[in-house]
Amino acid sequence: MVRIGIIGFGYWGPNIVRNFHGAEGCRVMKICDTSEEALKRAQRSFPDIEKTVDWQDLVSDPAIDAIAIVTPVSSHFDVAKPALENGKHIFVEKPFTANTAQAEELIEIAERKNLKIMVDHTFLFTGAVKKIKQLIDDGTLGSLYYYDSMRINLGLFQHDVNVIWDLAPHDLSIMDHVIREKPEAIVSTGENHFSEHEYVAYTTIYFANNIIAHLNVNWLSPVKVRTTLVGGEKRMLVWNDLDADEKIKVYDKGVKVENREGVYNLLVSYRTGDMWAPRVEQTEALRLETQYFIDCIVNDEQPFNDGHSGYRVVKMLQSADRSLKKRGELVYL
Amino acid sequence: MVRIGIIGFGYWGPNIVRNFHGAEGCRVMKICDTSEEALKRAQRSFPDIEKTVDWQDLVSDPAIDAIAIVTPVSSHFDVAKPALENGKHIFVEKPFTANTAQAEELIEIAERKNLKIMVDHTFLFTGAVKKIKQLIDDGTLGSLYYYDSMRINLGLFQHDVNVIWDLAPHDLSIMDHVIREKPEAIVSTGENHFSEHEYVAYTTIYFANNIIAHLNVNWLSPVKVRTTLVGGEKRMLVWNDLDADEKIKVYDKGVKVENREGVYNLLVSYRTGDMWAPRVEQTEALRLETQYFIDCIVNDEQPFNDGHSGYRVVKMLQSADRSLKKRGELVYL
Amino acid sequence: MVRIGIIGFGYWGPNIVRNFHGAEGCRVMKICDTSEEALKRAQRSFPDIEKTVDWQDLVSDPAIDAIAIVTPVSSHFDVAKPALENGKHIFVEKPFTANTAQAEELIEIAERKNLKIMVDHTFLFTGAVKKIKQLIDDGTLGSLYYYDSMRINLGLFQHDVNVIWDLAPHDLSIMDHVIREKPEAIVSTGENHFSEHEYVAYTTIYFANNIIAHLNVNWLSPVKVRTTLVGGEKRMLVWNDLDADEKIKVYDKGVKVENREGVYNLLVSYRTGDMWAPRVEQTEALRLETQYFIDCIVNDEQPFNDGHSGYRVVKMLQSADRSLKKRGELVYL
Amino acid sequence: MVRIGIIGFGYWGPNIVRNFHGAEGCRVMKICDTSEEALKRAQRSFPDIEKTVDWQDLVSDPAIDAIAIVTPVSSHFDVAKPALENGKHIFVEKPFTANTAQAEELIEIAERKNLKIMVDHTFLFTGAVKKIKQLIDDGTLGSLYYYDSMRINLGLFQHDVNVIWDLAPHDLSIMDHVIREKPEAIVSTGENHFSEHEYVAYTTIYFANNIIAHLNVNWLSPVKVRTTLVGGEKRMLVWNDLDADEKIKVYDKGVKVENREGVYNLLVSYRTGDMWAPRVEQTEALRLETQYFIDCIVNDEQPFNDGHSGYRVVKMLQSADRSLKKRGELVYL
Repeated sequence: MVRIGIIGFGYWGPNIVRNFHGAEGCRVMKICDTSEEALKRAQRSFPDIEKTVDWQDLVSDPAIDAIAIVTPVSSHFDVAKPALENGKHIFVEKPFTANTAQAEELIEIAERKNLKIMVDHTFLFTGAVKKIKQLIDDGTLGSLYYYDSMRINLGLFQHDVNVIWDLAPHDLSIMDHVIREKPEAIVSTGENHFSEHEYVAYTTIYFANNIIAHLNVNWLSPVKVRTTLVGGEKRMLVWNDLDADEKIKVYDKGVKVENREGVYNLLVSYRTGDMWAPRVEQTEALRLETQYFIDCIVNDEQPFNDGHSGYRVVKMLQSADRSLKKRGELVYL
Repeated sequence: MVRIGIIGFGYWGPNIVRNFHGAEGCRVMKICDTSEEALKRAQRSFPDIEKTVDWQDLVSDPAIDAIAIVTPVSSHFDVAKPALENGKHIFVEKPFTANTAQAEELIEIAERKNLKIMVDHTFLFTGAVKKIKQLIDDGTLGSLYYYDSMRINLGLFQHDVNVIWDLAPHDLSIMDHVIREKPEAIVSTGENHFSEHEYVAYTTIYFANNIIAHLNVNWLSPVKVRTTLVGGEKRMLVWNDLDADEKIKVYDKGVKVENREGVYNLLVSYRTGDMWAPRVEQTEALRLETQYFIDCIVNDEQPFNDGHSGYRVVKMLQSADRSLKKRGELVYL
Repeated sequence: MVRIGIIGFGYWGPNIVRNFHGAEGCRVMKICDTSEEALKRAQRSFPDIEKTVDWQDLVSDPAIDAIAIVTPVSSHFDVAKPALENGKHIFVEKPFTANTAQAEELIEIAERKNLKIMVDHTFLFTGAVKKIKQLIDDGTLGSLYYYDSMRINLGLFQHDVNVIWDLAPHDLSIMDHVIREKPEAIVSTGENHFSEHEYVAYTTIYFANNIIAHLNVNWLSPVKVRTTLVGGEKRMLVWNDLDADEKIKVYDKGVKVENREGVYNLLVSYRTGDMWAPRVEQTEALRLETQYFIDCIVNDEQPFNDGHSGYRVVKMLQSADRSLKKRGELVYL
Repeated sequence: MVRIGIIGFGYWGPNIVRNFHGAEGCRVMKICDTSEEALKRAQRSFPDIEKTVDWQDLVSDPAIDAIAIVTPVSSHFDVAKPALENGKHIFVEKPFTANTAQAEELIEIAERKNLKIMVDHTFLFTGAVKKIKQLIDDGTLGSLYYYDSMRINLGLFQHDVNVIWDLAPHDLSIMDHVIREKPEAIVSTGENHFSEHEYVAYTTIYFANNIIAHLNVNWLSPVKVRTTLVGGEKRMLVWNDLDADEKIKVYDKGVKVENREGVYNLLVSYRTGDMWAPRVEQTEALRLETQYFIDCIVNDEQPFNDGHSGYRVVKMLQSADRSLKKRGELVYL
């Protein structure tokens, strides 16, 4: 039985509690939030679980094996470090940390003390992303050409981070998960009218083997778009996460290159065939992920969305931010 | 009566001939193409118009007042220059020229000889673009924040130019037409697998007043997308050129900024209201544009899509290309 | 304080409990279900509310003022009659009763004892239906021509009723609510392959003033459709209930009739203008409806979705069913 | 070489001329229209073909082997009969004739004189309908359950026929082509506000084996819809003719019937799997059909869209009309 404490009961916290509450081999011991109002909500939904306003109460509790940190990114490190030092496994909201130095330090402690770190890259547990990974891994798409994501809507302006830190972790963790090649450099542009934080950003990531990824994030779009295109040598796919029934469409379309008598006679044409929308698993991603965290602890396995995965995403966020500030300067990863 | 000769009867030429043929105050005197096959097609469709394989035949013909140049961009300058020198007005396919030096030289000759240059930025004559311009000019959108265009499909790979020179002239000429602020700098990234020419490119243009524009062009998309978002202070619009009936949707959505007690208490929230799809004029854009060319000659008026407009687009293309080659280097305009 | 008991905690019951639980001036006293498994679910979600397997326990409880009946339609009458006789107001799931005789008897008792009946026609409380009613009532659409609804999906086959009794109550209650004219006759066709109950049905309702309504319901569609067209003299609207953001679109389109020199020269053409998607209220319909039930009791007001409204819907269902069994026989209402 | 004359150069006639003009083994000899204006248009597009205002001139011309009749339905019989009697093959616009008696008489003459009749059911030659027929014939869909078509838009009000005679021939000819079972009875309802002719109609056709077809046609819809659902035992399909790229979607969805211990324990549930959009042939349907007419004459083959096919469609139209006039009376076919 893994005994877990949850710190943070704001927007996402209730989902974390509900799912750990329902996970096998897990007991939720305490919920912590500094807001009395949040704790009242917690009381209504989870009357049987202990509540506290003091997070250190959880971190130092010997009856707790693991801590879920569901607070703003700026506080992740300050909570995670003592938790690890007190021998707790940690489940940390994305993005993992506010910078790579913090991520490195946490990874080092966890490895020294043989503790698990899991970063909540929930999307990796959706049926859609699992299907995309499978279609790349089993060669259906062929070698990759590009990955192009649009994640825009009329969104809440965050006070502490810009649109990249808010929305891009989803896409960056997915790219990190499904693209085998290494990211090499990043270029990011964007703009800002209202505060110091950019509301729109366009980010290009150069991967090895000439793969290019692009990400369009925007808090100020009149329409909501959640669409990713993945272009491969053999096939291409479109993932529309807002389509209830046909999230993934695989197109048997591609390019034919015929190299006749040297590069000047290179003939590039295209072919077009059927489209196919595979059925996608519907289980709630967070349920699978929270169970996976418990199982990794019980079986002493390293999760694939571990601290290193969290580090790589933070590295890309940090680099994109640096490029953004310098109007698209190329930043090597 | 303006007597016109048309050079180039490939993919677009027949539309140009058909429209000048139907324009008031215009007579199409000759069609030229170096391909015998093209001239046979011309013979079937326009049996009454003279054909020739020799473009110099048109350029030197005293019975011709104006020349339409509908050939690949690499040949525009070589045909346009003698045409102007022989006193012909010119209608040139987009992009105007292969570089800014050529554009400057042609403009200089035309101004010296009081001849008209019109660059075929057809989109400026569509009902959709006219409506967008009107909504910006009359203040419906308020001051602009961003302009974000996606123009992708499974397209023919061009042999002589990359995807930017092929697809971006549309968007750049529209931006040049509807955004009053000046473009200041450009960042472009992209990739290439098959030839020396990029098949995908992501281009950011920084305008004055913190306006940002972005353009996603791709020859290797499994789906066709022709969508532009324009974000303004008061309202935002989405232009989906593939929607037969509701091309332009205006959203009464926006951002509310309340600056209470200093920047740290800046409160940015959003509001959401009705959506409205104005009726858009349906007349064929090229018909309006060709007639406008004739009328500008007859009335001795300067077209708004003149050589200077063509020059500005070429300047942006050239700069994007330079940035692209250097992986997103910021290029000032 | 209205004290309410809820009978039935299956698919829809939890929503009823949750909403009465949160309504002002209301206390949920007891939850009843004959299934122990359902009561266990109720215990987890509403630990503080008393549970019972015996519905007569609620009907006879003097501490209860009102009963919500959320059971299959076949049992509505058997529960509702003693509830009314014991002086309880009733909130009944749609359709009101299994036939019109039952509806008449319940209405008679309620009126004699001055008790409220409310039938759960939830859709009448959605922002979309309220907007449609407003657009008709304020003359925006002009006098009505037709009302055409499609409500199809891959649905659970019901054991006790056919697709009309399952899906049509939604549309019939909406028609009853928004169309001022009286329905006069009904024609229904349909088919069945798997059981005695039709899985598909096409129903036409003739209203006064030549208004025609049509309803396409189907349990065996590969795609989910929830679309209604309303055609009026001045404007027409499309209600797509699956569109998250633009549920209602009003088209400034219509027909122009010019009667020149007798009927043979009748000229009917159409005009086309802007489209407009008004913002639609987002509040949960069931929350508004449950509060309205409490308020009607407290203020002794007659709800518009009362027993008479329930009766009219049952009358149409019963008539459609009779027509269906006779392959489209015209049944007068 | 089949020498053909075309009677009628209105809306559809130019397409017929253009396609016979390009067909192999065919020469267009004459174009006839009673309107001088139409003949002027014909002159501009087809300067080399002879024109006439007198249709009898074609019917009696010994240099003409076949006649295409592209006039309003009311005149089909009057032109077709003398054409056949003079030994001409005929290609007739849909619907074949104004009633079944006329159709029978024409079929009788043609068979007696060994002449071909082809009715222009163009849709049967589209890639979409060919694909649907293939998916039914090869068992992909399994035995059929239902066929449900919606064909609505803001359309021109016809002066001489109602919406059924105008729009339904498309769907009825397709049903006749792809459904192997025989239609048995028809129920049609509709309404009318502006003239004697119904602008909207809902038609149900009962086929053998409990297959049901339904057709929703409307001249007064604010949106254009061209969607057909075909439900089968094994799979179901949606044909959206307005979707440029994915006209046909095949859903691996269906119903599972488990008959356990008698009908009262009948368990009907559904299953859901992948979706698949097969590539659909793009060749212009009318080009294939006109060539097929020529080939049938040359090779003395009976076309599948012959007079009998035309007769069956007219029979259904006539019966639907009769049912419509009597508010949904069941009419046996």
